[in-house]
Amino acid sequence: MLRATIDADVFKEAVDAIAALVSECRLHVSPEGMRTRAVDTANVAMVSLELTPAAFETFEAAERPLGIDVTKLKNILGTIKGDDRLLLTVPADSQVLNLAFQSYRYSLTMLDPNTIRKDPNAPALELPGQVVLDGTTLANAIKAAGVVSDKIALGIDPEARVFYMEAEGDTENIRLELGSADLLSLTETKARSLFSIDYLKDMSKTMGRSERVEIGIGVDHPVRFSFEIANGAGRVVYLLAPRIEAD
Amino acid sequence: MLRATIDADVFKEAVDAIAALVSECRLHVSPEGMRTRAVDTANVAMVSLELTPAAFETFEAAERPLGIDVTKLKNILGTIKGDDRLLLTVPADSQVLNLAFQSYRYSLTMLDPNTIRKDPNAPALELPGQVVLDGTTLANAIKAAGVVSDKIALGIDPEARVFYMEAEGDTENIRLELGSADLLSLTETKARSLFSIDYLKDMSKTMGRSERVEIGIGVDHPVRFSFEIANGAGRVVYLLAPRIEAD
Amino acid sequence: MLRATIDADVFKEAVDAIAALVSECRLHVSPEGMRTRAVDTANVAMVSLELTPAAFETFEAAERPLGIDVTKLKNILGTIKGDDRLLLTVPADSQVLNLAFQSYRYSLTMLDPNTIRKDPNAPALELPGQVVLDGTTLANAIKAAGVVSDKIALGIDPEARVFYMEAEGDTENIRLELGSADLLSLTETKARSLFSIDYLKDMSKTMGRSERVEIGIGVDHPVRFSFEIANGAGRVVYLLAPRIEAD
Repeated sequence: MLRATIDADVFKEAVDAIAALVSECRLHVSPEGMRTRAVDTANVAMVSLELTPAAFETFEAAERPLGIDVTKLKNILGTIKGDDRLLLTVPADSQVLNLAFQSYRYSLTMLDPNTIRKDPNAPALELPGQVVLDGTTLANAIKAAGVVSDKIALGIDPEARVFYMEAEGDTENIRLELGSADLLSLTETKARSLFSIDYLKDMSKTMGRSERVEIGIGVDHPVRFSFEIANGAGRVVYLLAPRIEAD
Repeated sequence: MLRATIDADVFKEAVDAIAALVSECRLHVSPEGMRTRAVDTANVAMVSLELTPAAFETFEAAERPLGIDVTKLKNILGTIKGDDRLLLTVPADSQVLNLAFQSYRYSLTMLDPNTIRKDPNAPALELPGQVVLDGTTLANAIKAAGVVSDKIALGIDPEARVFYMEAEGDTENIRLELGSADLLSLTETKARSLFSIDYLKDMSKTMGRSERVEIGIGVDHPVRFSFEIANGAGRVVYLLAPRIEAD
Repeated sequence: MLRATIDADVFKEAVDAIAALVSECRLHVSPEGMRTRAVDTANVAMVSLELTPAAFETFEAAERPLGIDVTKLKNILGTIKGDDRLLLTVPADSQVLNLAFQSYRYSLTMLDPNTIRKDPNAPALELPGQVVLDGTTLANAIKAAGVVSDKIALGIDPEARVFYMEAEGDTENIRLELGSADLLSLTETKARSLFSIDYLKDMSKTMGRSERVEIGIGVDHPVRFSFEIANGAGRVVYLLAPRIEAD
């Protein structure tokens, strides 16, 4: 059972964050809120999302996994205009998620949660490099890097005390160096790993709206991006595996 | 013979309304104004348009059918920037429609009216359900329905006193219910017919700009949309045949 | 050796002007500034560009031709947001052009200037018809003409004292006549030549931003467009060969 009201834009942002990586997910609802964790089909990226009851105007739920067609839910939410309240309901034993917004009523038949890939475990990662920065800066750098290459290196140069993003094309090179003036915080730990631009572009659609993205990086290790949504009542974590750096 | 001046945006709107359904038409000019009636190539939809002399700043015309390449006329009007006056002229016995706008002179050789499909008769239709609403609301609902299906049902539920638009996808469903608060008027007569989204989308480009669209519907009957253009000095009527509702 | 700072938008405009016609060029730097001259691969159009040291905030250069991949340079500049100062450097003997903008560092390996087509000579042209007009007017007319044809005639009618642009489609025709009220200046010399819309469209992306474009035309002769950039500290000249007028 679920009966909750939420600002439509907040719910859109949450669904967009998931839709950046996966087309279906198990959404766990319970009195503690909503949460999901899912990996993309290529097993390269993972998204975790949590919305506490405080993210909602009203929230009532019995524990249950909901099988969500994320793409369809995103499309439905895309038809919503205006920043009104959205009512989400799933009657007990029903297989239908109902959404009500202004004079619109939407219903989405849910997927059998057993047909959806099991929730992945969160890998234990030691990522000693920690950087905190504005999401817009991050998103712009990823976009710029995409012009010259399909890969981008993220790293920390502890001597120069900068976080850098670097992309190499055949004959051209882009490097963005951000020092203390441009960052909210930085650990002075050597780090450098290489990532696919495509995944980062997908992730940065949502990250780019956040004023504070926490990045965890290491040497040839995955990267973790973590940021709040729903005015602090929710959190999104993305993990992305590194690519091999070919010389 | 035709010699008329008209606000360029008003004439664009009239041509757009026709171009939504047909690529050529017979435009009848006479001292009573301009009118046309045409059906699309699939015989599914019909457009009627009337502009009285009051829609023009100056208007002088002798009775004559003009064979118009609607697509080319729309393209020419698309090059016009700014909201100035447009001069339309067809000299007596000439086969050319001349348009003058600012320092631009356009000429469009007309089609032989005899090569254009004869004007269809307006079918006699009894459409007991009458709904009046804002064009934007209608256009938004059609757009939302297009996300889940290529068909949309329009209907009146006389018990709930609502006009509804409903579209069904494989697993998802959108329904918009508009009651007295959202409508300008509604007859409480049961009605429901199914229509192709594509035609409705084409029609709603023009309808969406109108503050008042009158809808006539029945049970498995065509739908009629009627709205004013040119500040009340013109009128557009669209008719659209229903689709068979497959169960 | 090159070390120069310039407003990023001014440098973008200069590179855009070249990129409209060619994908690589020899950029001659010297204490007198920067200049290039290049013809497109089809030998139909030529661009000349000059930037004097006054176009730069600081400018220091030893004479040297730089082999520039114009397309890549344009793409790199396209990632720049904001109107800050751009630092351009080429160390002596280096084959790399470095750009620094805000926290971004770009590097572009240069081409061997010997592999780039030799600088064309500027042809000696007598173009008696001279027209001066606003670039926006010119760009709009070229765009409008493109709707009906892939060719446009530019001409001067000395009797009507107008500069005209004319395009003919199968059944439609667009003609723009500009008299003294719309022009900054006009010589009353008969002229008319026919040109490819595609080249003019490419050129008008840059010309359209200029408040004053000088046009030189003749009878079945090339056309020359000349306009200032960098607040008068630079100049672009385009030459375009005429097309044969088929009847």
